[in-house]
Amino acid sequence: MARVSQEHLDARRRQIMVGARRCFARNGFHATSMQDVLKEVGLSAGAVYRYFSGKDALIEAIADEAFAVLRDAFDEAARQSPPPLPDELLAYVLRKCFAGTGFETEQEFGQLVLQVWGETARNEALGARVFAAVSVMRAGWTAVVKEYQRQGIMPADVEPEYAARTLMGCAMGFIAQQALFGDLEVGQMQQGLRGVMRMEVPNPS
Amino acid sequence: MARVSQEHLDARRRQIMVGARRCFARNGFHATSMQDVLKEVGLSAGAVYRYFSGKDALIEAIADEAFAVLRDAFDEAARQSPPPLPDELLAYVLRKCFAGTGFETEQEFGQLVLQVWGETARNEALGARVFAAVSVMRAGWTAVVKEYQRQGIMPADVEPEYAARTLMGCAMGFIAQQALFGDLEVGQMQQGLRGVMRMEVPNPS
Repeated sequence: MARVSQEHLDARRRQIMVGARRCFARNGFHATSMQDVLKEVGLSAGAVYRYFSGKDALIEAIADEAFAVLRDAFDEAARQSPPPLPDELLAYVLRKCFAGTGFETEQEFGQLVLQVWGETARNEALGARVFAAVSVMRAGWTAVVKEYQRQGIMPADVEPEYAARTLMGCAMGFIAQQALFGDLEVGQMQQGLRGVMRMEVPNPS
Repeated sequence: MARVSQEHLDARRRQIMVGARRCFARNGFHATSMQDVLKEVGLSAGAVYRYFSGKDALIEAIADEAFAVLRDAFDEAARQSPPPLPDELLAYVLRKCFAGTGFETEQEFGQLVLQVWGETARNEALGARVFAAVSVMRAGWTAVVKEYQRQGIMPADVEPEYAARTLMGCAMGFIAQQALFGDLEVGQMQQGLRGVMRMEVPNPS
């Protein structure tokens, strides 16, 4: 009996994930059935269930892949010494994330992220994955903010974790706007954030 | 026949919306049935369907109410001259929004917002409402950024709409983090954003 190559198995698995992502982004996780996914990827139920036990397994695999791309992009950028400024770091990570996950549009990427977020309240396993991934990102950003403080470009009286959460929030809010409107480019967010970083404001009283 | 007072009708309508919000935030929009809502509010189907034709009508009413509170809070803060700095304005609006909508926790508020965002791809009527509401917010923030520029506290070379979207994104990312983790206070985001605003960075090349 001929053995199926690992490359073939990986390509098939990926084909299913890409089709499922498209369905979830378009109709939402709950309004998509496994039948819809089968139709989208043009495979039989037997072929698909060999890789994924159902929709929950699919969305977990999709989230894991996106987080891995996100983490790699962040690590690559943040390990530079000195680290890039926040607007450059965010723009780099977002661009890498869009490119590395291979979504058809940035809006589709955003819509999928919103589906994953919306599922965390109901799906504990997915919630735990998202929590773990975002905790890693938060720790990474906190280390970068401390480095900004060491260099004297971020005020020393700011709690690093709060600034880290604000910068992560910027990226999350950008992704949400991309999902909702699809008309915001990374370069716009970068320019806007740079403007905020360059404001002339008094110290807090 | 005794007429039912408008106050009674309004209170009943609100009771249904609050119960539905709780269900949607806890289990997501799709995993919640109208039966779940009836059970949560302790009313008969007849009493509930008198006010809402179904889940779509409920989530639209919930979103409309939240947007009205948001818009009022923003308008109230932004009409000050000069307008508050971005961190103060965002913190004011978020606090008013949490208080004015009467959610039990800020996490529940965030979870409901994520459900609304996640529904926009599938539900065109809701998508149009969200688009209209966020467009109003974007215009409001853009006007505030122009005023910052007039005062010389925001660099003049930044496109006001991009800075506006970045600041809105900050708030949206904060709400998403509240939904996912429930452990971030408005004061933390405010301190973090103020830190970003006070960074010492070179002008873009």
